[in-house]
Amino acid sequence: MTSDLIFVTGNSMKLQEVRYILKEAGIEISSKDLDIPELQGTTEEIAREKCRRAAELHGGPCITEDTALCFEALNGLPGPYIKHFLISLGLDGLNTLLTGFPTKEAYALCTFAYSAGPGTEPILFVGRTDGRIVPPRGAGKFGWNPIFEVEDTGKTYVIFSAPELSSLTDDDAGLKICGDVRC
Amino acid sequence: MTSDLIFVTGNSMKLQEVRYILKEAGIEISSKDLDIPELQGTTEEIAREKCRRAAELHGGPCITEDTALCFEALNGLPGPYIKHFLISLGLDGLNTLLTGFPTKEAYALCTFAYSAGPGTEPILFVGRTDGRIVPPRGAGKFGWNPIFEVEDTGKTYVIFSAPELSSLTDDDAGLKICGDVRC
Repeated sequence: MTSDLIFVTGNSMKLQEVRYILKEAGIEISSKDLDIPELQGTTEEIAREKCRRAAELHGGPCITEDTALCFEALNGLPGPYIKHFLISLGLDGLNTLLTGFPTKEAYALCTFAYSAGPGTEPILFVGRTDGRIVPPRGAGKFGWNPIFEVEDTGKTYVIFSAPELSSLTDDDAGLKICGDVRC
Repeated sequence: MTSDLIFVTGNSMKLQEVRYILKEAGIEISSKDLDIPELQGTTEEIAREKCRRAAELHGGPCITEDTALCFEALNGLPGPYIKHFLISLGLDGLNTLLTGFPTKEAYALCTFAYSAGPGTEPILFVGRTDGRIVPPRGAGKFGWNPIFEVEDTGKTYVIFSAPELSSLTDDDAGLKICGDVRC
């Protein structure tokens, strides 16, 4: 069994952000792009199972990350399925989905899971940001950032600079690590 | 390795229907309720992986079944995630989801997968019925049957009798097996 801590991702932006945050804590981290099928379930169930499998495949300690965009009107959905909905509907379609409902309120979840190695139970760190779904602003970047407006700011995720975004959530390890990389 | 063919389900209504259909073909079948986590993905990917895992757990040949309700306006979603949407939104909420879209057209998919045993590639049988999403009629039964109106019939699934439903799809093995049990 290896003792090297890895961050399981194939996304170089996510890796860059996580490296930056962990460096402040004196932790060096490398990455591995593992093919781990995602389950259906709650965001927590999905995060735990992904981290368990990653630790088995890696044969050592690892960190995984999952994002979700939850609509209050849909009782938390699309949630962990947001990736599929974004691909199928696009940013405008995600707005249209809420046409018949009275609230556009939403929250973003960023869940990091850490496993000490195969057979150990993952520990979760969850960051939550409240906001609402709006027509896309600041488009051109990937993911659903352009339609999620952060509460009390009037800005969508995509409009924040990286340091601004980080300062939004100083008290929340999960979301701080999340940074500006989602979906 | 066992040679007994099983139908993997914990639903006695599904078992009854599958037994009835297969008896006509001279095949006796028993059931086993296995705990198999469902993946995210296309309906075909989900069905294949579920059947593969079922064959491994059973140690022999098996049949699994998956249903999906696909909205044309959402490019096929909620599809395999319909169960979560039904639980979160209810029948009325599923109608509300389509308020802002120009079409209420939908199709029901019933996918049976057969594996000859561990390590063999599952074979899929897919039945599709076209229709549209309507306010619930004939409520009181489980699943999304009350809001799916079958094309050219003016009736929701729940209003058909079992023999009527079966005769709808004589030329379609997948859906014929599906019968009136969904979700």
